[in-house]
Amino acid sequence: MKRAHRNLSEGILMTDQYQLTMAQLYFRQGLHRMPAQFEYFYRNNPSYGSHQAGYTVLAGTGSLLEWMAEERFTENEIACLGRQRGRSGTPLFQPDFLDWLLQEGDFSQIRLQGLQEGRVAHPTVPLLTVQGPFAMAQILETSLLNHMNYQTLIATKAARMRQAANRRPILEFGLRRAQGYGGNAGVRGALVGGADASSNVGISHALGFDPKGTHAHSMVQAFVALGSGELGAFRAYAETYPDDCLLLVDTIDTLKSGIPNAIRVFEELRRKGHRPVGIRLDSGDLAYLTLSAAQALNRAGFADTAIVLSNQLDEMVIWQILSQIRTEAPKLGMNPEEIIDRMVFGVGTALITSQGAAALDGVYKLTAVKDGKEWRPAIKISETPGKIINPGEKQIWRLYDLRDKAVCDVLAIKDERLDVTPELDLHHPVDFQIRRTLKKEELSRVERLYTDLNMVEGGAEDTIARMRLRRDYDLERLDDGVKRMVNPHRYHVSLTRELWELKQKLVGERLSIGKRT
Amino acid sequence: MKRAHRNLSEGILMTDQYQLTMAQLYFRQGLHRMPAQFEYFYRNNPSYGSHQAGYTVLAGTGSLLEWMAEERFTENEIACLGRQRGRSGTPLFQPDFLDWLLQEGDFSQIRLQGLQEGRVAHPTVPLLTVQGPFAMAQILETSLLNHMNYQTLIATKAARMRQAANRRPILEFGLRRAQGYGGNAGVRGALVGGADASSNVGISHALGFDPKGTHAHSMVQAFVALGSGELGAFRAYAETYPDDCLLLVDTIDTLKSGIPNAIRVFEELRRKGHRPVGIRLDSGDLAYLTLSAAQALNRAGFADTAIVLSNQLDEMVIWQILSQIRTEAPKLGMNPEEIIDRMVFGVGTALITSQGAAALDGVYKLTAVKDGKEWRPAIKISETPGKIINPGEKQIWRLYDLRDKAVCDVLAIKDERLDVTPELDLHHPVDFQIRRTLKKEELSRVERLYTDLNMVEGGAEDTIARMRLRRDYDLERLDDGVKRMVNPHRYHVSLTRELWELKQKLVGERLSIGKRT
Repeated sequence: MKRAHRNLSEGILMTDQYQLTMAQLYFRQGLHRMPAQFEYFYRNNPSYGSHQAGYTVLAGTGSLLEWMAEERFTENEIACLGRQRGRSGTPLFQPDFLDWLLQEGDFSQIRLQGLQEGRVAHPTVPLLTVQGPFAMAQILETSLLNHMNYQTLIATKAARMRQAANRRPILEFGLRRAQGYGGNAGVRGALVGGADASSNVGISHALGFDPKGTHAHSMVQAFVALGSGELGAFRAYAETYPDDCLLLVDTIDTLKSGIPNAIRVFEELRRKGHRPVGIRLDSGDLAYLTLSAAQALNRAGFADTAIVLSNQLDEMVIWQILSQIRTEAPKLGMNPEEIIDRMVFGVGTALITSQGAAALDGVYKLTAVKDGKEWRPAIKISETPGKIINPGEKQIWRLYDLRDKAVCDVLAIKDERLDVTPELDLHHPVDFQIRRTLKKEELSRVERLYTDLNMVEGGAEDTIARMRLRRDYDLERLDDGVKRMVNPHRYHVSLTRELWELKQKLVGERLSIGKRT
Repeated sequence: MKRAHRNLSEGILMTDQYQLTMAQLYFRQGLHRMPAQFEYFYRNNPSYGSHQAGYTVLAGTGSLLEWMAEERFTENEIACLGRQRGRSGTPLFQPDFLDWLLQEGDFSQIRLQGLQEGRVAHPTVPLLTVQGPFAMAQILETSLLNHMNYQTLIATKAARMRQAANRRPILEFGLRRAQGYGGNAGVRGALVGGADASSNVGISHALGFDPKGTHAHSMVQAFVALGSGELGAFRAYAETYPDDCLLLVDTIDTLKSGIPNAIRVFEELRRKGHRPVGIRLDSGDLAYLTLSAAQALNRAGFADTAIVLSNQLDEMVIWQILSQIRTEAPKLGMNPEEIIDRMVFGVGTALITSQGAAALDGVYKLTAVKDGKEWRPAIKISETPGKIINPGEKQIWRLYDLRDKAVCDVLAIKDERLDVTPELDLHHPVDFQIRRTLKKEELSRVERLYTDLNMVEGGAEDTIARMRLRRDYDLERLDDGVKRMVNPHRYHVSLTRELWELKQKLVGERLSIGKRT
């Protein structure tokens, strides 16, 4: 795509047309500067078909804040909108509205609060709350959802892979199967959630990581076609990268050609005083080949070389390979944990597309508008009870039990103080019959989850290293049942009695309004 | 994401690290300028679980060519690579290689041939052939795959939706669930393959399309919270857009509130001499609600208004809704085709993520290198026979039967002339036992599929309008069985006897090399 087109389509016009038609309507009605509150939340953890996530890892906030800080309406965008015509042939957007966009069309008035990036998150919990002028908060919707949904989805998938891989290194390799330039956002999500590094050169440099990778089959094929064979290719590689020699061994025949040739070249390197790095396996029965490769490498005195696996890996495949190694290695007289400790996993398509669950269903809903000095809760009555929004300004709390495990996220009205309440009366967010009471003695502590994410202080200056610390902290405090890869236990999310009662009151009122109008 | 980071990660460093380490190796070996040939093809049509594609619509070439024309190594990229260190702490990329990249690191020497964008494509057929200096053709791999795989995937999904929707308009709405900025590439693929327009403002303008959209639930909610109700919201919308009034009717209660309020506002518009556009349904039983809405609108004299459907639509849901309308409408005394002729489909997540098949498995394989004046076929011996590459320089032919339906794509050696051969001896690409003979009398014509796509002439100056003509032309000439939404008939792809024999010869040679080295 042309650079000029990329810049246009990744700028402030990265939004849906209806955000702009609504913004003009608010402008026309004098509502464009009215403070409005929107919340970002999702309804269901990713379900990958035969396996399911019991949580997500929140990611994308930093990218969103950077985007918001730089993007605004300029003459270029205004010219595009000015060209749009309605059915009658007249301009769809009028000059006074476009002038206003040119003057005030940025996100400097938007306040963003919520969970910090890297934290473990759960369905129905408002993860971000946006407050700001109605028109600009509306225009923000599409981009906010785009930044948050995809990176959170990928961070979650990466966290699962890391768990399956016994925390051995995960390398992200997916750019070739990603959605265009969006693969770069996927790398960021992966690095936040569980990947150690990526093969993607540009975004790795942008984020301050070293890209990873060695060689492909094409290099071996070229040497074969030119008459030097696989051994010639490996020797050329070792000569160019004597201290970074990791060889892909399956171009011809892994066991009969690739591994013997690799060992021969490793021996040559050793004689010259270099330490070979390892091999990569990219086809065949990866568990069986890992064991065979480990045997051969050990026999040749290369027990410290890495074995990198790739080829359609996802969390279940990784989990299965490790299980098989734990079963099979002892039969061959090998210690499975020693083998696993030298393994590295290159993951491509399954990570960058979140295989099995290609989208997070995160939404951005209006929950209040400020009429003069008063915030008025906004609610949408839907046919699905689970889709009815929790109204008004809120605070989110996380409760920890006596083992210091998180047991519940609680949505409360903004000024409620769960830290000083002796007994918590908690309601299921949808089903009015389900409620429970938690006594202070049952909890080790309660934590306010919201922080101010605005610009410099909270969000944009955050680092991936800090996000990973939060992720690890939260994952440690998550019950094993919730972290289970298949059929995870459902983490509790509740409303306080006060919020529950407000919601019931508004639903009743709106239903009667619905009947009246 | 910061603009500087976007520019870096979407430029020539949108590649995998191993492409650069291999490029340096080729440079070190004096092979970096050696002509090499790579081919782009995919192995399997998208399978969406319970339904499957029998073909793809090729898309992405124009974006790729634009990217190739503008991107090159500059001081900025060289500085990034210069900072990378190997295990020993020394620079991974040496100054002479980096100097060469700065001088010659662009795609001006790359020749691209293949099928034109918008054409119907099939598995195992080389869709693009790249010839150029080995190092730069290698570096191109990741970006080429990224551009082609994703846009082809989405164009194919869009073509299926268009087919399911009886060619009624398809509007793309998916940016909020897309992979970051990659949603823009998805829009382009959708527009090539079957969508009529998109809600995505920026990319629509970049591609010369008018973005589409009206309003969301939030607008109605705000008016409800402020006391004017749904009717107040609709009136405000009609006042702002009297000739473009399309109303979302499900915020409170579709049948009891939304449609009656919309009709009231439409009547007010009509009295003022305006023609209302229609309504949008975004929840509930969309087939039932479409029928009810049509009845109510007809009764009020608005039989010419559009009914836009959205909410988790994919090709099977659309197909099912249309089937249900065809069954139910007559029972209500309505003509189903009249109802279908006013329907429009807004598709979001399912299109932009290609729901059920989130990636196309397209690959980029080295098939020949030029040693002096001679092209040497390159081949990779894999454990899977289906993965063995078809070697050498080729031409692709499409055969049409006497009904003018395409019956087979044939891979031939470059200089073979299928247009003058009286009898075609065709081989299955993998299974040596399957072959067949086609006589000239059985065919109406044979077509060469390859054109020169390079830069201005073939690719970058192409238009989406022309791509859509090619798509429609090819889809008309595709057998109905191949276009079936579920269990499509398998389209034949064959090798000529000459190519088949070359492949067998090379496999034999390589296997013996594998044993020797």
